[in-house]
Amino acid sequence: MTLHDLISSIPPLDEAAMDAARERQNQLTKPQGSLGRLEEISIRIAGITGQARPAIQHKVITVMAGDHGVVAEGVSAFPQEVTPQMVANFLHGGAAINALARHVGARVVVVDMGVAADLPPHPGLVDKKMARGTANMAQGPAMTRAQAEQALLAGADVVRAELENGLDILGTGDMGIGNTTPSAAIAAAFTGRDPADIAGRGTGLDDAGVQHKIEVIRRALAVNQPDPDDALDVLAKVGGFEIAGLAGAMLAAAANRTPVMVDGFISTAAAMIAVGLAPDVRSYLIASHHSQEQGHGIMLDWLGLAPLLNLNLRLGEGTGAALGISLAEAACKVLDEMATFAEAAVAGKNQ
Amino acid sequence: MTLHDLISSIPPLDEAAMDAARERQNQLTKPQGSLGRLEEISIRIAGITGQARPAIQHKVITVMAGDHGVVAEGVSAFPQEVTPQMVANFLHGGAAINALARHVGARVVVVDMGVAADLPPHPGLVDKKMARGTANMAQGPAMTRAQAEQALLAGADVVRAELENGLDILGTGDMGIGNTTPSAAIAAAFTGRDPADIAGRGTGLDDAGVQHKIEVIRRALAVNQPDPDDALDVLAKVGGFEIAGLAGAMLAAAANRTPVMVDGFISTAAAMIAVGLAPDVRSYLIASHHSQEQGHGIMLDWLGLAPLLNLNLRLGEGTGAALGISLAEAACKVLDEMATFAEAAVAGKNQ
Repeated sequence: MTLHDLISSIPPLDEAAMDAARERQNQLTKPQGSLGRLEEISIRIAGITGQARPAIQHKVITVMAGDHGVVAEGVSAFPQEVTPQMVANFLHGGAAINALARHVGARVVVVDMGVAADLPPHPGLVDKKMARGTANMAQGPAMTRAQAEQALLAGADVVRAELENGLDILGTGDMGIGNTTPSAAIAAAFTGRDPADIAGRGTGLDDAGVQHKIEVIRRALAVNQPDPDDALDVLAKVGGFEIAGLAGAMLAAAANRTPVMVDGFISTAAAMIAVGLAPDVRSYLIASHHSQEQGHGIMLDWLGLAPLLNLNLRLGEGTGAALGISLAEAACKVLDEMATFAEAAVAGKNQ
Repeated sequence: MTLHDLISSIPPLDEAAMDAARERQNQLTKPQGSLGRLEEISIRIAGITGQARPAIQHKVITVMAGDHGVVAEGVSAFPQEVTPQMVANFLHGGAAINALARHVGARVVVVDMGVAADLPPHPGLVDKKMARGTANMAQGPAMTRAQAEQALLAGADVVRAELENGLDILGTGDMGIGNTTPSAAIAAAFTGRDPADIAGRGTGLDDAGVQHKIEVIRRALAVNQPDPDDALDVLAKVGGFEIAGLAGAMLAAAANRTPVMVDGFISTAAAMIAVGLAPDVRSYLIASHHSQEQGHGIMLDWLGLAPLLNLNLRLGEGTGAALGISLAEAACKVLDEMATFAEAAVAGKNQ
């Protein structure tokens, strides 16, 4: 499948299913609209899936990992060796995303999109390695345009494989030391905002570290001149392999009528790439949370997405997406399981 | 047990357990503080329970129901008969709180604190009926001071009974047509704010209905002159039986080192009563969500509580508390289940 075919295969939302879900919400034993965003999410998932009473049973969080040449500029508080170490931690079940995925009953699918180390084979690890990390975007493009396209399609392949195992909602997650830097660069490229408005502390930079990171991002944008009207160009020049994989996964989920629960800063940068490539994908995206990382709000505003949670999270890995998936499941259960006024013989509103 | 005994039995938080939990959070494989409010909640629950790695397994949401004489003034969009009808709906599992409690694995404990109808006996219904609804607070006290004290102790009894069945966290919920009116009156009494800043649409009043409700609350405050320095006086004069029961349940939970997940507008009014009676109870309260009902933010600010969720909910029943309980459980699982940097052989931050 080509990228063009993938993008063309994204259907519009099913308006009839949304109308049926909305009508049912209004008959359930509660004041109309009183479950707020849970009602809204349930109706949207009806439109996404084409089912008036959608059920969320099979939940997947894909954690895509990649390294970044730009760490040579000293933009992260942690060393690059942490990326493969954390991949091993995911595979052994000891990371935050493992605890939270277990809590919400989701499978974790770990993908090597481009870690800068040879990872030992593991039955739980999906190998889509594009290269041992990207090139240093402060000196030139992070990857070639062909690599960007290939990485998008590799991410889409991960979703297609999971569809066969059951997939009612896809959560996105990331791991990659340094990856708030390309994510901030992507956001600056699309929004036209100064990197100072977007770049944050990442895993724990001090003020001087943030200032240096801002300057590195400015240099990357100046050197590469990414074209905001060409999302593939933005991705290739200032993106990352895990960001590409996540964007491709979002496209494939949308093409298969599957809702996407978007995690924080890095996943939102991937969502910007996906929406830049295919504006229709936006209807399939649910923003799980508002990250504490500077600039995330600007990115969500550009996407037109309102986050469900605001818990001052700034970890990534899909941790916010896991919590959001539980809310989406709750929303669908309310729609499906509640009694109507007629069924429960409850009186309606005074006329 | 007297109310005085109950209040005196609330212990301070266990600082040693909180220190141990904080220390462990800082050793887990994530940047320090990167799980934001999940970390904060886990540390507080450690202090509440006295356990460095607390587990939340037995979850209870108590839905306390009561009617309100003030509905004679026309303050609600729904008729009073809905209160017993919704109690039946809770007992049959068809309400929103049932769907959400099932989702988070919580038991629902339905309590008749003062419904204005004879409810048929049901094995799932706890009978603590104080009276068939309160008196009309627009004309005099909603209840006597003795009734207020008795209703508080009845609510505490509900929690003590549930402790025997296992109770690691208590969610609060309410049902009572008209009960945003006494709740707003309680908030106005404690904060000194005008009822116009606090009273909202409840189950669906139009602008004229809200204006009328504001005037009814002003009249209730003028007629009764509740003393904000005497929480029992506030409760008796402008409260409700379900509000009293919930406040008593909060006191008993705190006395037994059990965290309380506070639901929305009505539960927060009950929390104000509980904190007015026993300021130490505040440390045991977690605000689940920011209700869409006008004035809830003022109440949360007075309590010094920051809500976890903002989903535009305005239903009550404990629906927001259910979702908050799931977050608290997630927070404790992260603290307990994650690997440390040493265990996972992950490198730490650059020095």
